[in-house]
This record gives sequence, structure tokens and C-alpha cells, in this order.
Amino acid sequence: MPLERLSMNLATVREQWTFEEAVVGCREAGIATIAPWRDQLEHCGIARARRLISDYGMSISGLCRGGFFPYDGARERRAAVDDNLRAIEEAAAIGAGCLVLVCGGLPAGSRNIAGAREQIEELISKILPEARSAGVPLGIEPLHPMYAADRSCVNTLAQANDLCDLLGEGVGVVIDLYHVWWDPRLSGEIARTGEAGRILGLHLCDWLVPTRDLATDRGMMGDGIIDIPLVRGWVDRAGYKGACEVEIFSALNWWKRPAGEVLEVAKQRFVSVC
Amino acid sequence: MPLERLSMNLATVREQWTFEEAVVGCREAGIATIAPWRDQLEHCGIARARRLISDYGMSISGLCRGGFFPYDGARERRAAVDDNLRAIEEAAAIGAGCLVLVCGGLPAGSRNIAGAREQIEELISKILPEARSAGVPLGIEPLHPMYAADRSCVNTLAQANDLCDLLGEGVGVVIDLYHVWWDPRLSGEIARTGEAGRILGLHLCDWLVPTRDLATDRGMMGDGIIDIPLVRGWVDRAGYKGACEVEIFSALNWWKRPAGEVLEVAKQRFVSVC
Repeated sequence: MPLERLSMNLATVREQWTFEEAVVGCREAGIATIAPWRDQLEHCGIARARRLISDYGMSISGLCRGGFFPYDGARERRAAVDDNLRAIEEAAAIGAGCLVLVCGGLPAGSRNIAGAREQIEELISKILPEARSAGVPLGIEPLHPMYAADRSCVNTLAQANDLCDLLGEGVGVVIDLYHVWWDPRLSGEIARTGEAGRILGLHLCDWLVPTRDLATDRGMMGDGIIDIPLVRGWVDRAGYKGACEVEIFSALNWWKRPAGEVLEVAKQRFVSVC
Repeated sequence: MPLERLSMNLATVREQWTFEEAVVGCREAGIATIAPWRDQLEHCGIARARRLISDYGMSISGLCRGGFFPYDGARERRAAVDDNLRAIEEAAAIGAGCLVLVCGGLPAGSRNIAGAREQIEELISKILPEARSAGVPLGIEPLHPMYAADRSCVNTLAQANDLCDLLGEGVGVVIDLYHVWWDPRLSGEIARTGEAGRILGLHLCDWLVPTRDLATDRGMMGDGIIDIPLVRGWVDRAGYKGACEVEIFSALNWWKRPAGEVLEVAKQRFVSVC
């Protein structure tokens, strides 16, 4: 894929760089699009982050992340809504292409996944008017089923599309290959997402064999078994022309390497593998 | 659930007991139904295993496992077929209720999951006449999507049902809650499996939060977040009246405890939780 479409998701270098270092480092590496995480912005300060983004002419493909909606009681519900409203403000403040939603798993002590899924729909619907007003599209990211208990009960692209059908304008989908590559219905659901005009992002990394940790053993594109060109072709044909984020959680490998090296390898693989 | 329906899958005590010890130990614990693994039978010797089963009056709910079908080349294809034909013979020899199929992941070096899925269908179709002749139902067990690369490309109950539709008589489905609990289509697909009269087994364990290992950190029923009574109710209403196997891969906990203790806890939880 041409390098112009690369966005560096800053989770990929979160152990090495602050937000400011990442802006400077990406610019030096010729990368003009990034996707920060809220804790990185907070550490930098949002006003200062805005200035850096402007001074360095960076585009923000998405802000990670809103979500974690399921709640146990009124206090948790309010906290989830408030936190997501702040996330919408922050996304608007930095001109993010979307706010990525990691929708959240089961509330503590709960075994009610159907209920958690209803709460997710309820609270996205609740924050949606503010997102629309702020001009911030909400990007539901289906997460791999191995995260259903503790990170997101939205586990297939079909589910994310069904949610979007219910919620209407202002909500779309972020497709992360790591989470969806295994899905037998993937090509059809990517086409459906595209037809509805709701692909808000594409995240790239690879599935390693063996995978030694559920959360932080993701691979660089080309090092695993995902047929990235195949799936990217489906996303292309579905009409997506936006940024493609390289997002790699890798405590066992890439987080241990110098960030400049990680960026160089990511760039090479983006062009040669993706 | 009444204790009469409990079957002890011998993976649960594989680090503690040989097949013979497990037969004796289960009998002493009042458990008359078991599901052995082929390596356990091989270690015992199949003729001796048959005698033990007969002497102790044990029922065999299923034999684990056939499968691992996807191949890279004619030699691997033949080896997969031969191994599965042997598994069918062994299942027949011990009077197993079914041969459980863990269908296999990607061949080494492959990224072609659609191709692997076609090979699975092809080779089940290939061994099916022998399974029918031997009176051994083949039980396709959908595995959690986190095993799609290395253990099974059959990752949802819908997929297993679709395969059964294509393959016809002699093939059914084994439902393991660990693998399917997260699936938003679960209740409908369980009903579909039941309507077709093809539920060949129900495996029980629990999903721990956090899960510290992809393969061997499964939980005892009640220790995790699966709503076991809910899903078991769906399986009941789908008409399943057979054995319910307790199958727990737990290098971090249960494999380290005395097998007698594991059986006692499993029995208690089977009655109180399931």
C-alpha cells in the first residue's frame, strides 16, 4: 500500500515515546498521520497537543478510545457517559477523524453478556447527539471474541453493523484485522459496511503463531498468518480510501525496540506486505 | 444438573492419572461416564483399555480426538486421512458415543483460511463412509476463534451447522461452552443444531477473567463468567439428553491438584452451578 495512507497508531510506540516525541519522530520518519490514545494526550495536555499537531501539520485518523459502556448501577452508568462525552470533546479538539469505541466487556461480577450488549447500544445512543453536534463520528471497533469478557462484547463485524443499523447517522465501524481475520462471514460483512458508507478506519497488525499473551503479543504485518492483502482488497472494494493505522500491542517484541526502528520496519512492511 | 449426566473428560486429570488410574478413580468417585483422549488409550493399549471399560462398566461419551485435516500436499493429506480412520476404529473399539473432531488450523506457512476450511469439508466427507459403517458419529467441535490459526478453522456453531448441512448423515456437533459462549448468534444456532438432531455432546468449563494462557487456563464451572445455566437451558430445550463432559485444560491450577480433589469439586459444581 502506498506510504501516504499509513497512519501510526501511537499504541505501537507507547512504551518508547511521549505524544510530543511521537509527533516529532513520526514527522522525521515521513509519517504525517497518527492516532493517539487519550492517556497520551492527557499526559501532554490537550492544548499543547493541539499546538503540536498544528505546528507539525499532522492529521489525526482517530482518537483511541471511547467506550467501556456496560455498567452496574447508576453511578457507573453516569461515569461511562461522562467519560465518553469528554472523549468526544477531545476528539473534536484535535480534529480526529473518528472516536474509536472499544465498547466494553461484562460489568464486574456479571455473566449477562446479552445485557451488556444492550447497555452498549443504550449508551452509544445516549452520547450520539453530542457526537453529531461535535462532528465526531463514533467508530465501533469489533474486538476479537477472546476479549468478550473484559474488553468488548461487540465481537463480530456483523454485530457492529447491526448496531449501526439501529443507531443511525454518526456511527460507523473501525475494522481491525487482528480482531476479525478469523470470521467466516468477513468478506460479506466488509461489503455491507462499505455499502452503508460506514468504514471509519482500518487497523493493521498480524496474528502470531504461537500467540503467547492474549493482550500484548500482536505481530508486525507479515510476521503472522493473516492474509492482509486479501482482506485489504475487500476493504478497498468496499470503497474505503482513508488512512490505514498500524497498531501493534507488543510487550514481548516491538515495545522493547527503539521507536525509530519500529517505524522503519512498519513503513517497509506497509509498502511490501499490506 | 443431576450427577448421572456428568462425564469426566480425561483431559481434566491428564497430568495426574493414566487411563487405568482414571477409570478406577472415576468409578470410586461414582462417575460412570468418561471421555478419554487417544494418547491415553495408546499408552494403556487399546485391548487393555477395552477390558477396563468393560470390567468397570464405564460408558464412553466421546473419544478425543480426530481432525487436524488441513494439509499441504498429498503426503500430509494421506496422513490426515489415515490418522482419522484409525481414530474411527479406536472410537468403535471402545464404544464411544462419538469421535470428537478438532478440525485443524492453517497448514504450516499458509495464510489461506478459506482453503483450510474447504479441506476440512473435503476430508470429513472422505472419512465419513467409514465412520458410518463403523457406527461412529463424527462430532464437529467449533473452537474459539483464538484457535483459528493453529487448532481449528471451524470457529462458530453456525459454521459447524453449515458443514453438517453439506455433509449429511453421520456428522453432528459437539458444543463446548468455552468455545462458543461469546457468540451473539448462540441461542439460535443451538436451536438449529437441536432441530437437526445433531447435538452429539456438551462440554463444560468456564472462562476465567483474566485468562493468562490461550490454551491451558480454563476454569472450573462457576469460577468464570459464562452463564452456564442459561446456555445449558438452551441445549436442554434443543432436546439434548446426553452426557455433559467436564473438560478443563488448566496447567495453572487444576492439573496441579490431586485428581480426587478435582473430581470432587467438579461433581459439586456440576450439581450446584450447571
